[in-house]
Amino acid sequence: MSLTVVGSIAYDAVQTPHGGRERMLGGAAVHFALAASFFDEVRVVGPVGDDFGPDEYAVLHGRNVNTEDIEHVEGGKTFFWKGVYGENMNSRETLETDLNVFETFDPKLSEASKAADVLFLANILPELQLNVRGQCTQARFVALDSMDLWINIAKEKLVAAISEVDCVILNDSEVELFTGEREVVAGARRIMEHGPSAMVVKLGKYGAALVTPDDSFWIPAFPVDVVTDPTGAGDSFAGGFVGCVAAHEGEATTDVLRLAMAYGTAIASFNVEEFGTERVARLTGDEIVARVEELQRITTFQSEAVPLR
Amino acid sequence: MSLTVVGSIAYDAVQTPHGGRERMLGGAAVHFALAASFFDEVRVVGPVGDDFGPDEYAVLHGRNVNTEDIEHVEGGKTFFWKGVYGENMNSRETLETDLNVFETFDPKLSEASKAADVLFLANILPELQLNVRGQCTQARFVALDSMDLWINIAKEKLVAAISEVDCVILNDSEVELFTGEREVVAGARRIMEHGPSAMVVKLGKYGAALVTPDDSFWIPAFPVDVVTDPTGAGDSFAGGFVGCVAAHEGEATTDVLRLAMAYGTAIASFNVEEFGTERVARLTGDEIVARVEELQRITTFQSEAVPLR
Repeated sequence: MSLTVVGSIAYDAVQTPHGGRERMLGGAAVHFALAASFFDEVRVVGPVGDDFGPDEYAVLHGRNVNTEDIEHVEGGKTFFWKGVYGENMNSRETLETDLNVFETFDPKLSEASKAADVLFLANILPELQLNVRGQCTQARFVALDSMDLWINIAKEKLVAAISEVDCVILNDSEVELFTGEREVVAGARRIMEHGPSAMVVKLGKYGAALVTPDDSFWIPAFPVDVVTDPTGAGDSFAGGFVGCVAAHEGEATTDVLRLAMAYGTAIASFNVEEFGTERVARLTGDEIVARVEELQRITTFQSEAVPLR
Repeated sequence: MSLTVVGSIAYDAVQTPHGGRERMLGGAAVHFALAASFFDEVRVVGPVGDDFGPDEYAVLHGRNVNTEDIEHVEGGKTFFWKGVYGENMNSRETLETDLNVFETFDPKLSEASKAADVLFLANILPELQLNVRGQCTQARFVALDSMDLWINIAKEKLVAAISEVDCVILNDSEVELFTGEREVVAGARRIMEHGPSAMVVKLGKYGAALVTPDDSFWIPAFPVDVVTDPTGAGDSFAGGFVGCVAAHEGEATTDVLRLAMAYGTAIASFNVEEFGTERVARLTGDEIVARVEELQRITTFQSEAVPLR
């Protein structure tokens, strides 16, 4: 089995109430790959420039991520994002986005990447997602992330891409923007009308919801002591979620998807404890399992029919 | 056993994206009492004016709420609140607050109300909460609600009141305002340093958290099809929560408190489906139990140690 992810590889500059970094490894495909690497062999497809160095490859190789399909663009510069988080971490402001090599990215998948049985289309131009989806003919489970920008300027292509995947992952404000529906389940079902059999709605610091045709499932964010840097939390979540599905052969049942929500939640909670990839890069499987078990403990109640008047 | 609640009895005017009401029964003590009435005999303590009529009493009597301690202030007018909810229901704006008879409210409890074994101090002046707390010497469980106003202008008295109760119920922004802590658990623990052994942090449409000295518990809001009017949801939650504790004799164990979170969540979800008290007034016990069971179903996952790499 193997898992292919297509998306951004980046340098991030970030400032939060707990400090900042001027230039750290980031990008959706990187955060996703590190998280998913606990479950399966992961191949990253994405472009980098001349500035992408051995230290960054070492982080990926440290988690046995396959980097053969990282495309080095001669003379180019790696995608750069700079942002600052507000005092309460609820809002972030983008100060700079330099697409650089990402601007002309045309995903070229090796035969090995095309042969993946699970595929994650991180947040990139919907047209490219559709293109990559078409190349991975053997994938049994494909998930897709997107953002407000594409909902606003490329909705038709986004719908086309969504119609070719099994699972869509968006946050609640993106679902509302997409559908006009205020309620998570109603909005998710509207998006699922285009084809997907499952949808994950990320609720930021409040957790996430899984919506399937007849059901929903809700899990809180794991309560960490300090959120140092939320950057990449959503992609770490997706990596744990999709990775867990990849680790279970056959159909992605509701039980598997719910367990995957817990693994995604657990890994995302480590991601936010330090800047960028710093915490997940040295994470262990035992630490992940301990948080999954703790998540179960802090969400369980014994149902009892109290005599009501 | 009996449960006493002290707080506002009001007329509300409300406008939401789904419509509005010019004058409907409301107030924290009313929403709380209707919800708690499913679990125990509930006595309401609060003032009303000449305009408070038989139709309003009928709603309370319809749920067997004891209204003997509702104080009719001759020549006075009942507390009135007018507000409008924004398009996404996240924000509400207060257009008018007429304290009326509430301005000079001095809670007078009958012997029966004083003898309550469970007490809820709804959001009123902390000094009055302290006063009432002192009158109810036999209460085995006392919970308190408050608001940003008192945190800002009467924090010392609020701390004094908090130090005399078992459980504090606030929303997450109030906890942050009170403590400066961004994280729910850290903030709750800071408030619990003043004495309470439990704290409920309401997360609005995202659910609620229960924090105890060594533990936390998280429950999502019950996903309803349409939120018509959130007014009173927090007080309905508190009524279900405190009512469920009242229905269990002896110490409020973690198991009881968690179950109480589920009952509070279930009743609040009915409250928001229609305006004001309209839905809860005709609610049945079977409907509540069905949602508690559904809440358990939509939050449960089978933990499994996936082999990690």
